Parts: sequence; structure tokens; C-alpha cells
Amino acid sequence: MSDRIDIAVIGGGPAGLSAAINAVARGKTVRVLSASETPLKRAETVDNYLGFYNITGGDLMKKFEEHALALGIATEHGRAANIMPLGNYFMINFSGNIIEATTVILAIGVARIREIPGEAEFLGKGVSYCATCDGMLFRGKKAVVWGLASDAVEEANFLHGIGVDVTFAAKGGRPEELNADIPFISGAVSEIIGEKSVTAVKINKDIVDTEGVFILRQAIAPTNLVPGLETENGYIKVNNKMETNIPGLFAAGDCTGVPLQLSKAVGEGLVAAQMAAKYIDSLK
Amino acid sequence: MSDRIDIAVIGGGPAGLSAAINAVARGKTVRVLSASETPLKRAETVDNYLGFYNITGGDLMKKFEEHALALGIATEHGRAANIMPLGNYFMINFSGNIIEATTVILAIGVARIREIPGEAEFLGKGVSYCATCDGMLFRGKKAVVWGLASDAVEEANFLHGIGVDVTFAAKGGRPEELNADIPFISGAVSEIIGEKSVTAVKINKDIVDTEGVFILRQAIAPTNLVPGLETENGYIKVNNKMETNIPGLFAAGDCTGVPLQLSKAVGEGLVAAQMAAKYIDSLK
Repeated sequence: MSDRIDIAVIGGGPAGLSAAINAVARGKTVRVLSASETPLKRAETVDNYLGFYNITGGDLMKKFEEHALALGIATEHGRAANIMPLGNYFMINFSGNIIEATTVILAIGVARIREIPGEAEFLGKGVSYCATCDGMLFRGKKAVVWGLASDAVEEANFLHGIGVDVTFAAKGGRPEELNADIPFISGAVSEIIGEKSVTAVKINKDIVDTEGVFILRQAIAPTNLVPGLETENGYIKVNNKMETNIPGLFAAGDCTGVPLQLSKAVGEGLVAAQMAAKYIDSLK
Repeated sequence: MSDRIDIAVIGGGPAGLSAAINAVARGKTVRVLSASETPLKRAETVDNYLGFYNITGGDLMKKFEEHALALGIATEHGRAANIMPLGNYFMINFSGNIIEATTVILAIGVARIREIPGEAEFLGKGVSYCATCDGMLFRGKKAVVWGLASDAVEEANFLHGIGVDVTFAAKGGRPEELNADIPFISGAVSEIIGEKSVTAVKINKDIVDTEGVFILRQAIAPTNLVPGLETENGYIKVNNKMETNIPGLFAAGDCTGVPLQLSKAVGEGLVAAQMAAKYIDSLK
């Protein structure tokens, strides 16, 4: 059993860390769960976050992480595969571990996700975003792992290890770290085929029979992360309190829409944390 | 004649400076016009603005001002008395100087202003917020100066100097710097009396005959600053683009509502500036 925390922050970029430090400032317990690196780290120079001038994105992000650490917040790396709203709390599947939180703040940034045909339709019917979460369902069965994220090879090896009949697909050459027993196809999955559940995927021009397909992107579309979440033009719909349409679920930063900018993300992180704290207090 | 600038930022606190640096980042001309000190300067410790930890408000504000200066932005101190929307530009009366700007960003913070009876009714009909702006209208006439701001004595002396028959009212004792020829009443103006225009004010329990009254507060209610501006619960009403109900007029920071927090102000300053820049580009 896991202890229930007050606020789970999904995402360790500027919005997530701003939310986390403000959660602590309000005396709330918080964990920061991050699946990917913030694009801030790749920014050459940042000049428009008030207080810092002519600083690299990497150095600024280091300062942000130091600030969070000073308040006892260390980002945990892994994959939040799905978030279930359960009335007065949430269950988060984080790399196969279940985390319970009274509130959740989505600070997942934006990913230019192009869903492929069949993906949404067969989600949970053969399509999965998390090997460690759903792997056991495919023991003794065929599953294609489509590797778009850096940890995909590891996930494929894990599935192979628990007895899944894995085929690994990714752009470029066969990854060195891939278990020698796993067949490799160079290419991208372009379609998922099935009836009640997945029966095959299309890779390049070939149809590959399979019962499962793990799509391991760096990010997951928010609507796939939280069932029932409302979006607008691909962004999570929030009001000025950073509330989503689901009680207890807040969002902040790039995932809520343009402008996709650091200061906005930090400001929204603060608002989301304060409103989450207020929401928690209102439950008592 | 004044050159028209792209963006006039009213307020030199965190929201205003964030707006200004982002205006410059978008290649826009900008001036920062400030009437009062930001409350940030008085904050003992700030821990919840991401990137700075355990810093005094004064030191943080210094960093903000250094950042702005590095981009060529120096806050100008004075009193923005009124802002007139004129279709595709604004005229700002700034301590008696007229500034033209294509857009205006209000970052005026919050002031706990309690309007007194008659104030709104007689605004422009004897009630003024700016001695240097409207002083000449009262030459040879009686005017009460109600001093609530630190520069009020100076303004009273100025009015006396140009030939206004000034009476100065303020809490406490007679200010040393007040011109010896100016009568002083210890107290607060509690009501403004008149018919078509001001005829008297009530100070303590006394009725003092006067044709004008200069109310010199540190801040002006936003609705008195810009005619026709919509507010909600005393805060300036904005959408998520920081647009007010007046085209070309934006607002950011504490003046748009709770939470009254630094990160929110900085984030909103960015959004307001980017949206103002976009608006300017759309006019071309």
C-alpha cells in the first residue's frame, strides 16, 4: 500500500517545479514525476525570464532544480502511464508503481504527438504506452514494441525477460543494447489493425501480426493519460484557476496552451499549486 | 509632439518589468511608467519564485531592475493620471506630459482604495488626481489638496506656485516641507459635495468651501485611470490573453486578481507583452 500524497506533479520542467515549490510553501506533501527532459535544457540562451539575463537553458534549469532540492523536492524519473480519477483521489501508474494522490497537477509540456490510425481505438485493447505497467498481460503473446523514446530498448528487453514474444521496431539501425533474441524491424508503425482488439500493425509496407503494440513515445497525449480530460485545440482546457474539467486535477505550463514560454509556465505552476492546496483544504 | 511608442507599461513592479523585457524581446518600443514602489521591495524573504531561494524582496527587485536595464529599460517615476483610449492608440497623461502609445499594459498592482462619496461623480468636475495635469484649471480658484501619497506636499506647493488658492489636508501634523502660506487641516476628506461641479468638501466634521479637490493617493482605481474599463470584484477583468474589454489595453499582475503572487505577475507580464506585440502587428 502506498501512502497517499497531497499533490502529484506530473512533469519536472519549470511549470512542474514551480508547482512543487509552491505546494511545499503551502505545507503540502508533493512528488514530482517526470517522463522526459524539459525543452528548456536545450535552449541556447534565455533572456526573458525576469531576474536572469543571458543564461543558457541548461544553467537556468540547474538553478530551478537546486531551488527545488533546497525545499526537499527531487524529481523522480519514470513514465506516468495513466491517471485514474477516483472521486476524492487519483491513482497514478508510474512505471508500474501505483501512487495515490489527493490532487494531480499536469505539467507535461507539449509533445508534437501524431496519433496513428487505430491507436485511440485500440488503446487498452492491445495498445499500451507502458511496458512495465501492462507487460504481464502479454506473457506468451506476440507484441511489437515501437521505440520512439530513449528508454524503449530497455522496456523491450524487460518484456522479453518476462516472456513476451517481442518484436522491436524503430528508425535507423538495430540498437546495440537490444537483447540479441529480439527481432528488429527498421521503420515506423503507421497503422494499427484489429477488430475487437489488435491483430496486426503496419510497419513500412509490411503487415506484422501481433496481439499487442507498445507505443513508447517520450510523451503521451493528455487525453490518453487521463480518461475524460477535456482539451481544446490539443491543449488541456483550464480556467484561470488552472482547474481542468476534472475536480482535483489541475494543469500548468505549455500543456495548457500558447504562449509556450517559461514565465507563463512558472506563473501557472504557482497558481495550480495554490489552487490545489485550497482544494485539498476544502475536502477536510 | 511626442513620438508614439508601441507599448506603455503602467507600473514598474514584477509584472510591469516582465512585460517590458518581453516587449523588447519582440522588438517593440516600450516605456515603463511607475507611480509607486512595488510591495515586493518590502517582502522579507521570497522563496517561491523559481530560481531564487531565500532572497529578500529588495534584492530580488534589484535583480529584476538590473535585468530590465540590461535591455535598456529604465523605469520612469511619475503619476499616470489618466489613459484615454483613442481608437488605434492611447494618450497617457504622465505627470503632465502626454505620452502616445499604440498599446497599454496596466501592471498597477492592487491598492486598497476606498472611494469617498462624490469622488466618482465629480471626477473631472472639480475632482482631480494630478496637480501637474490639471493645476492650471484652478488658477485663482480654491482647491483642497488631500495628501495621501508621499509626493502630495510637493504637488500642493506646485499648485500654490502657479496661483491656486490651496488648502492642504492630511493625517497627522503639518508637514515641514509645506509652503508656509498654505493653510493646513489635519484630517481626511470624507465627502465631496457639489451640484454640477464641486462646491465643498467635508473634512472631519467641517464643510470646507472649494472649487477643486486634488485626491493624491499612491494609486488610482483602474476604472478612474481608464474610462470604460471593466472590472470584477475590484480587479481588472481580463481573459487568458490578458486582454481587457478595451482593444489594445492589456493588464497583468496583482491588478487582475488573486493569487497576488510574484510568479503569476511575471507570467502574466509575459503574456500581456506578447499579446500586445501581436496586436500591434495585426494593425499593420
